[in-house]
Amino acid sequence: MDDIQCEKDERNISIDRVGIKGLTYPVTVLDRVNGTQHSVGKIEMYVDLPRHYRATHMSRFVEVFHEYRDEITFPHIKGILKAIKRKLSAERAEMKVYFPYFVEKSAPISRAKSMMKYDCTFQGTLDSVFDFVITVNVPVTALCPCSKAISKYSAHNQRSMVSLSVRFDKFVWIEDLITLCEESASADLYSLIKRPDEKFLTEKAYENPRFAEDLAREVASRAEARPEIVWYAVEIENIESIHAHNAYAFLKKDKRK
Amino acid sequence: MDDIQCEKDERNISIDRVGIKGLTYPVTVLDRVNGTQHSVGKIEMYVDLPRHYRATHMSRFVEVFHEYRDEITFPHIKGILKAIKRKLSAERAEMKVYFPYFVEKSAPISRAKSMMKYDCTFQGTLDSVFDFVITVNVPVTALCPCSKAISKYSAHNQRSMVSLSVRFDKFVWIEDLITLCEESASADLYSLIKRPDEKFLTEKAYENPRFAEDLAREVASRAEARPEIVWYAVEIENIESIHAHNAYAFLKKDKRK
Amino acid sequence: MDDIQCEKDERNISIDRVGIKGLTYPVTVLDRVNGTQHSVGKIEMYVDLPRHYRATHMSRFVEVFHEYRDEITFPHIKGILKAIKRKLSAERAEMKVYFPYFVEKSAPISRAKSMMKYDCTFQGTLDSVFDFVITVNVPVTALCPCSKAISKYSAHNQRSMVSLSVRFDKFVWIEDLITLCEESASADLYSLIKRPDEKFLTEKAYENPRFAEDLAREVASRAEARPEIVWYAVEIENIESIHAHNAYAFLKKDKRK
Amino acid sequence: MDDIQCEKDERNISIDRVGIKGLTYPVTVLDRVNGTQHSVGKIEMYVDLPRHYRATHMSRFVEVFHEYRDEITFPHIKGILKAIKRKLSAERAEMKVYFPYFVEKSAPISRAKSMMKYDCTFQGTLDSVFDFVITVNVPVTALCPCSKAISKYSAHNQRSMVSLSVRFDKFVWIEDLITLCEESASADLYSLIKRPDEKFLTEKAYENPRFAEDLAREVASRAEARPEIVWYAVEIENIESIHAHNAYAFLKKDKRK
Repeated sequence: MDDIQCEKDERNISIDRVGIKGLTYPVTVLDRVNGTQHSVGKIEMYVDLPRHYRATHMSRFVEVFHEYRDEITFPHIKGILKAIKRKLSAERAEMKVYFPYFVEKSAPISRAKSMMKYDCTFQGTLDSVFDFVITVNVPVTALCPCSKAISKYSAHNQRSMVSLSVRFDKFVWIEDLITLCEESASADLYSLIKRPDEKFLTEKAYENPRFAEDLAREVASRAEARPEIVWYAVEIENIESIHAHNAYAFLKKDKRK
Repeated sequence: MDDIQCEKDERNISIDRVGIKGLTYPVTVLDRVNGTQHSVGKIEMYVDLPRHYRATHMSRFVEVFHEYRDEITFPHIKGILKAIKRKLSAERAEMKVYFPYFVEKSAPISRAKSMMKYDCTFQGTLDSVFDFVITVNVPVTALCPCSKAISKYSAHNQRSMVSLSVRFDKFVWIEDLITLCEESASADLYSLIKRPDEKFLTEKAYENPRFAEDLAREVASRAEARPEIVWYAVEIENIESIHAHNAYAFLKKDKRK
Repeated sequence: MDDIQCEKDERNISIDRVGIKGLTYPVTVLDRVNGTQHSVGKIEMYVDLPRHYRATHMSRFVEVFHEYRDEITFPHIKGILKAIKRKLSAERAEMKVYFPYFVEKSAPISRAKSMMKYDCTFQGTLDSVFDFVITVNVPVTALCPCSKAISKYSAHNQRSMVSLSVRFDKFVWIEDLITLCEESASADLYSLIKRPDEKFLTEKAYENPRFAEDLAREVASRAEARPEIVWYAVEIENIESIHAHNAYAFLKKDKRK
Repeated sequence: MDDIQCEKDERNISIDRVGIKGLTYPVTVLDRVNGTQHSVGKIEMYVDLPRHYRATHMSRFVEVFHEYRDEITFPHIKGILKAIKRKLSAERAEMKVYFPYFVEKSAPISRAKSMMKYDCTFQGTLDSVFDFVITVNVPVTALCPCSKAISKYSAHNQRSMVSLSVRFDKFVWIEDLITLCEESASADLYSLIKRPDEKFLTEKAYENPRFAEDLAREVASRAEARPEIVWYAVEIENIESIHAHNAYAFLKKDKRK
């Protein structure tokens, strides 16, 4: 059976990234409290393709991922990328795993327990060095300082999505990144709150007004203060309650420079 | 060239609905202020398929729609469905057109002008009778009465989506349905507001707290009061600022019964 | 602390459905091969709200679900709905759980193993009786009979989504519903195939051409033949490779009538 | 009324990008055949925020856009960004406009006319220089060369999305970029085709098999050959008909280097 993918290509064009996207797979990730956590990952895997090859062998991505799916962790992602590079004779291999991560939280006053979901991403790249980025997406409350300052009472507030991406030189738990984001907000969210919690969180948000810009800076200050984080990017998107469009802020910083 | 679609089918199974989905097309709709408005429609068109035919002729849906796209109105949708029924020898033809509709609004205090987008749907069905439903989706502010009542100050509030569907026996403008929904909310939204507007809307929302349930009932009361509306359905979804999930309410009423 | 939700409502409008939407939670479901399977569920839970109550207590939905999340099965969903009805003094309780379900498949020739994801839904309603619907969404290949018949060689083919919903009077496995759908298609899909599998599946699809209408009927015939299925609905959507829009077919049948 | 946004910020953190996202607005763009075309744009607008300011004035983005919406073209986008920079005292202003663009196409054999939609993006950035990128997203057919080579008959084929982004030093029409992409594919798509067209396109695709990698290179070769294009990026995503996940390829090239 012909191997068309291996045919010589005469167009003299190398391709930065070829591979698969939108593969959904069961994954297991580390959990600070329970050891491991089962989740469902959305996977992208790519390699570079030199100019003289016609195509890559896309089935090998799945073959490798299938074998490693039981432990999607920092060292294993490096192992996956090494295997991919070798099996596909690539100079560079990349992968992204998007997955929901669950944390059991206790409501601030009633202590009622419920699970909160945080969409996370692991992104690894291996060429001569291994690069790894973790992203956590943390929904919070943002209450507008301007609205508070100018209004007789109340202030518009909204669900806001905080996204924090980090590179680190010492292991960092997803849970720590989530807490960092939640502490930066007007208030944090829970799947289950009772009336005393609602009162507490409403008042807390009003006492801690934050523009999207404030939120970005609060997260950045905390990331700056953690020595194990060597690079970070912060993205804020407020689902404005007084607009049908969103407010947005973004910044990134490489501490190594 | 064989007409495979017209082959006799022996499986003895009639199909309720066959057709096309996800066709995007430029459309022109009626606009109370400007006569007409250009928009972009997402189209679904279906017919029933009797048990003895193997398949329908999907190209004819597009053929008919292409011809009529310049006036997507109540009478023209009936015309489209009539043409579809005839061309496809169907007993029943259906179509849905989803489109964004724009209204120029003036901010409540500054009078600053901007366009607000409202996602709308026209849904027509023709068998022995013609049935027509208009839906408007209206983003508003909803402020929580419970949070207001129990908190020292402020109250959580959020962007909320009000969806109102109506059948009517006398023409009703999209603009009227939008206004009906906006009047039912804690506050309405604008793409452009200045500080005095923000103050006004923040205070207005606090003075008009609404649960999802209240919003549904406020819209229903107003729909009940308009004699030209003979049937309505109301759906509310609050993008809760204190939760990562949404609050929801739904009701429908047929006045003719 | 006031219970605003319990206030008497004077508007005299009952609400069909109030509750929560878009709650994501870890769930455990039954798995024919492994006993149970961990997944991630997207949850909707609703009750009816009589005219004299102002609002429902939305936290109780999460409270109940949190307790039951370890076994999202037919009998447990009934238990959840019973608890919801009682705790919220409702006449009627409803829930939907959307979750990805994974099955390990072996490629047809190479026997290479990989996981396939099928989006499923459990939908339960409890008023005086308990109603339960399972839906499986099965991606397959659909190859066009018309294109095959009229072309010198080849035929356009595409990924198609088969959705089968059933009510049953004797337990039915998700795996059986998936197989039923896959057998109805031009070919079924795998996350991992090698060249001999690709040859096999390409040829198989060409030998089994199916319109969207054929697919709907093939699934319907097989559902008709299974006595434990008492009601079914079939929906087909072809991501046409020769169009930017989709072909669609839908039918439903209640065998009890 | 206080201007909270203008307060001095002591955290000493500058923000790369603050602004608005998800604003939907009617827009008018240039059309080679008809002069202009009405469409609906999804808008993002950002500025940098120096470390000593607390927040930007988000309403000004909408104010400026509202004024210019009637001609969203290369020179006007520069005008918008200039106005934004001035009104917000920024060093750098950015905007993206996503919009569907329609082209009337005639089917290859029957010459039947219909509109095809292409999602496009204009992206402008102004700091000391003005940078402008156009992106067109062109759905096409991709037929797999490997499947063709190894199978007795037929080959799997699928809808594929080609995305081409360009920088240019002489005006280039959206229509030309679309044609460039369509010529690179196994076959191009139409909203309306009759049987002779279906035969023609099925056979054409079989005669022009393309991997995702081939598609990327075919588009790149054509972009390379057009002197007015000085930079390009090509992204291919195949909605594989034999997989539930997608095949992907990406490359970019700066001719000026």
